[in-house]
Amino acid sequence: MKSLNLVVLVGLVATSLDAANSLPGWNDGPNKSSIIEFVGKVTKAGSPDFVPEQDRIAVFDNDGTLWCEQPLYTQLRFALDRVKTLAPDHPEWKTKEPFKSLLTTSREKEVPVTEAQLMEILIATHAGMSTDEFSDMVSDWIATAKHPRFDRLYTDLVYQPMLELIGYLEANGFHVFIVSGGGVEFMRPWTERVYGIPPEQVIGSVIEVKYEVRDGKPILLREPKIDFIDDKEGKPIGIHKFIGRKPILAFGNSDGDFQMLEWTTTDQAGARLGLILHHDDAKREYAYDRDSQIGRLGKALDEAPSRGWKVVSMKDDFKVVFPKE
Amino acid sequence: MKSLNLVVLVGLVATSLDAANSLPGWNDGPNKSSIIEFVGKVTKAGSPDFVPEQDRIAVFDNDGTLWCEQPLYTQLRFALDRVKTLAPDHPEWKTKEPFKSLLTTSREKEVPVTEAQLMEILIATHAGMSTDEFSDMVSDWIATAKHPRFDRLYTDLVYQPMLELIGYLEANGFHVFIVSGGGVEFMRPWTERVYGIPPEQVIGSVIEVKYEVRDGKPILLREPKIDFIDDKEGKPIGIHKFIGRKPILAFGNSDGDFQMLEWTTTDQAGARLGLILHHDDAKREYAYDRDSQIGRLGKALDEAPSRGWKVVSMKDDFKVVFPKE
Repeated sequence: MKSLNLVVLVGLVATSLDAANSLPGWNDGPNKSSIIEFVGKVTKAGSPDFVPEQDRIAVFDNDGTLWCEQPLYTQLRFALDRVKTLAPDHPEWKTKEPFKSLLTTSREKEVPVTEAQLMEILIATHAGMSTDEFSDMVSDWIATAKHPRFDRLYTDLVYQPMLELIGYLEANGFHVFIVSGGGVEFMRPWTERVYGIPPEQVIGSVIEVKYEVRDGKPILLREPKIDFIDDKEGKPIGIHKFIGRKPILAFGNSDGDFQMLEWTTTDQAGARLGLILHHDDAKREYAYDRDSQIGRLGKALDEAPSRGWKVVSMKDDFKVVFPKE
Repeated sequence: MKSLNLVVLVGLVATSLDAANSLPGWNDGPNKSSIIEFVGKVTKAGSPDFVPEQDRIAVFDNDGTLWCEQPLYTQLRFALDRVKTLAPDHPEWKTKEPFKSLLTTSREKEVPVTEAQLMEILIATHAGMSTDEFSDMVSDWIATAKHPRFDRLYTDLVYQPMLELIGYLEANGFHVFIVSGGGVEFMRPWTERVYGIPPEQVIGSVIEVKYEVRDGKPILLREPKIDFIDDKEGKPIGIHKFIGRKPILAFGNSDGDFQMLEWTTTDQAGARLGLILHHDDAKREYAYDRDSQIGRLGKALDEAPSRGWKVVSMKDDFKVVFPKE
């Protein structure tokens, strides 16, 4: 009898986390309803769309989906700050582009860099140290660096409605993964604290590492070589490699998420939900899509209606954008 | 009051899963005691060795640690069976080694192959199909293929004491991962059913895949190229890449697990446990170590005492070896 009571009580606790209480940062409307309806049918035992808990995999892009990516990806901002920190050890940068301009221009975003130069910046700032050392660098930087427009920590510029959605999905038995083009080791030091998503559920781009024993102490040394880029077609590949199951829900905001949305929602038996966050709120955040260098959204926006992907409007669907200060 | 009762009841359920009931397949002795003592101190709130649940990461090798790897790795047996299945489509194999010998020799294990030929066999049998198709092939094969000596399904030749240990660790808040040199896609189709370990907690060697859309249907195509070998120094690299946390317990059985054991137990604050399964039971299973081609165990065995790794004897520590038929 006692264990029966227990089950009933646990059931009560779980179902009390309903949508109305869990998504206060979302305005009522068709997109919020789509989410609630989807979660309802995949979690309802006996429903034709029921999905067992272990298969309730939800994947979220990070930059521009969970936190602000304008005017520059946060990881690039970190890299540019690292260039300044490392400059005393690199006298050759005084005459070598793009480092010369980066070190002498006051607003980094105005320095034009080619893709090859960008890779050079990333390698120069992200390799040549142990994984533990890099993790400490990220933790130190993210604890103090502030956004140029909002003057808040980057980790405060996460989207409150998305935090609520992650919590709502988890309360409904979903396993939530981040699937980001950003470096996995730039995210893992803070994603558990900020999103409640543990390191093993964070997938991103990967740098090669080498195992070494120095003075009897094993370390992983970050090498100047990219192992895996978790963007575009890399996203379904990363999902397959790291998770090994197909998601039933995918949320992105740019064409870099196209294949992840396609992989999740196309040719699958049962209910699937694809969502795109459209940045159309210049007042509270930024307004950008097909012409933006950061987070370009064109093809995915164009094909959303025919593919059944829901386009979430930051302006209309987000009651709040960032957590209160 | 009701929610307080709930907590107490849940607590009672959790602690009732104690070691005596959870590890019946282990003989009493110093190794079993080491495990129980370790779990006791890392789970006891207030203990100097207490580890929060999210950091209770345990990693297990698969071949020879969780299931029988003699006289041939099961995945190789699968590959050899695939060679026979595919032979009609490869008339050139009639004259080409190692395929010619594999197809004409009755006992596959007697065909000597070089490492390069082994790679050729793996590529020929493991690439050129979609990930879904490969998963189906593995599921079909593993459902019927039997071990030559024991005449049982390979998935029945898992070690009963290890199944109990996984369950005991999970009941104590551990997150258990498989970290195997075997192909991840050879394991994931059955590891959840057999070990209770979900696909996202199975790490192994990885083949390259390519994202393609065929007739509007997205697939991942297995390419004839190895992406990552999760063996030796690849094991700490795989742990870092896929989990992003350091384990506190590692269990292996061969020198291929040396670096995983080293990474887990060396230069770490707090309690750590390294374990090696020593196959010394020719009667109930097999007896092999430093001279074996499969699962060679020399260096790790030699260094176990100085590194504090516990050497578990199959003969002495396992009350039972395989689950009852």
